[in-house]
Amino acid sequence: MEKVITGMIRRAARLMLEFADPAVYSKGRHADFVTEADVAVQDYLIGELSRAFPQARFLAEEGEGQQLTDTFTFIIDPIDGTTNYFRRRRCSMISIGAVEGKEPVFGMIYDPYRDELYHAERGKGAWCNAERLHVADMPLEKALIGLGSGPYYEDLFDLTSRSFAALLPKAADIRRTGSACMDLCDVAAGRSDGHFEWQLQPWDYCAATLLVEEAGGRCGNILGGLVTYDRGIPHLAASARIYDELQAILQQVWRAGQP
Amino acid sequence: MEKVITGMIRRAARLMLEFADPAVYSKGRHADFVTEADVAVQDYLIGELSRAFPQARFLAEEGEGQQLTDTFTFIIDPIDGTTNYFRRRRCSMISIGAVEGKEPVFGMIYDPYRDELYHAERGKGAWCNAERLHVADMPLEKALIGLGSGPYYEDLFDLTSRSFAALLPKAADIRRTGSACMDLCDVAAGRSDGHFEWQLQPWDYCAATLLVEEAGGRCGNILGGLVTYDRGIPHLAASARIYDELQAILQQVWRAGQP
Repeated sequence: MEKVITGMIRRAARLMLEFADPAVYSKGRHADFVTEADVAVQDYLIGELSRAFPQARFLAEEGEGQQLTDTFTFIIDPIDGTTNYFRRRRCSMISIGAVEGKEPVFGMIYDPYRDELYHAERGKGAWCNAERLHVADMPLEKALIGLGSGPYYEDLFDLTSRSFAALLPKAADIRRTGSACMDLCDVAAGRSDGHFEWQLQPWDYCAATLLVEEAGGRCGNILGGLVTYDRGIPHLAASARIYDELQAILQQVWRAGQP
Repeated sequence: MEKVITGMIRRAARLMLEFADPAVYSKGRHADFVTEADVAVQDYLIGELSRAFPQARFLAEEGEGQQLTDTFTFIIDPIDGTTNYFRRRRCSMISIGAVEGKEPVFGMIYDPYRDELYHAERGKGAWCNAERLHVADMPLEKALIGLGSGPYYEDLFDLTSRSFAALLPKAADIRRTGSACMDLCDVAAGRSDGHFEWQLQPWDYCAATLLVEEAGGRCGNILGGLVTYDRGIPHLAASARIYDELQAILQQVWRAGQP
């Protein structure tokens, strides 16, 4: 599976980079965009994966009405970091995860700008190209935390802003790249120590959650419990060292906003 | 000057990348770090520039007690984005600006990870490698804004957090790379629309301010007035289209925190 999907994701990346000036469409909400490249990459990947894995089902960002079953299912984000993509920030990734029995078994993420291929299978470690990945082991006061949020979830602006305010004095610093996939790869590679987002979708985190876990980190629902793949959750990923502390701070921020 | 400094900045970048695991030292404040690479790159650049421009004076990040005069002065940041550098985030730049009569006349910034050389001289445009740069022309609701802050300015945490909260609903989104230089290059290149930081130092913004202005953008003190180069200021850079609007929002945020 790894070899077949490596070829596909690299070809999909070439397709993505071929659009010199992709048409951008609003999905209706504030700053929620899709480009013709997202659609083309997704169509390409679903077409190729369907041929190679005829039994597989699909859940993908630029689609609707899909439901996760226990069947082997690919969960795809054709371009994670769409705004970065059409603003030419070179900070966008293609993500292909696979779940079976609603648990992730395979994840591959490709950064076409740095030619970096991230890959994880359950029990086999996390890799970037030929390098094995390990999360960092920093205490919170030396930690870099990635803070994501969809600009279209307007009801989460306050919670996100209060999270920023709560963490700025406690962590070394906060980063915000605009690509959850990239932030999660950074956690897995030890280039940061945590990432959270109050509403994240399975295509954003499916492959990357497995990557972080296989790199020795932890992922879960900020408000408690495990990561689910049938619907979006408040998603937290962090090194084992700071996961509990970070979760406690974020839960406190959440409680402070409850009536 | 351009040709000579191009050679120096590229050699300095090789030196920077040669440190496999640079020693990191605290400068005493919260999350304020310097590495042996910052010091080595600065020493190298000052040594080379002194030989090539014997009359020049210097103002540089990893130094003390320097004062700007009307004499031709190089203003240097050996590694902008030091935390990114030692965390291997590949988001750090070398910046060499030059001021005469306290006004910037030359700016060169090098991104060693992408091999991108940014260059501006007063009246001659802004360039990245062979490409002329122009700021974008997005309205604020479609704009990406870079929000910087030094994690060591603890008295600015509240102002920075309130700025984040004020802009999140008004702009398309906020980015936070951890390198002011990179954020300002992004503004010049039209990959974002603005960047601000409530306390930024001349070595962070000297070269990049000229770059943004030569790309058709505007820079100034958030609280009013021009950019100064003899001391740090609350620094704002933006496309001409949104500069005034962004400044008004930030001034309102500032006033709301005054007793």
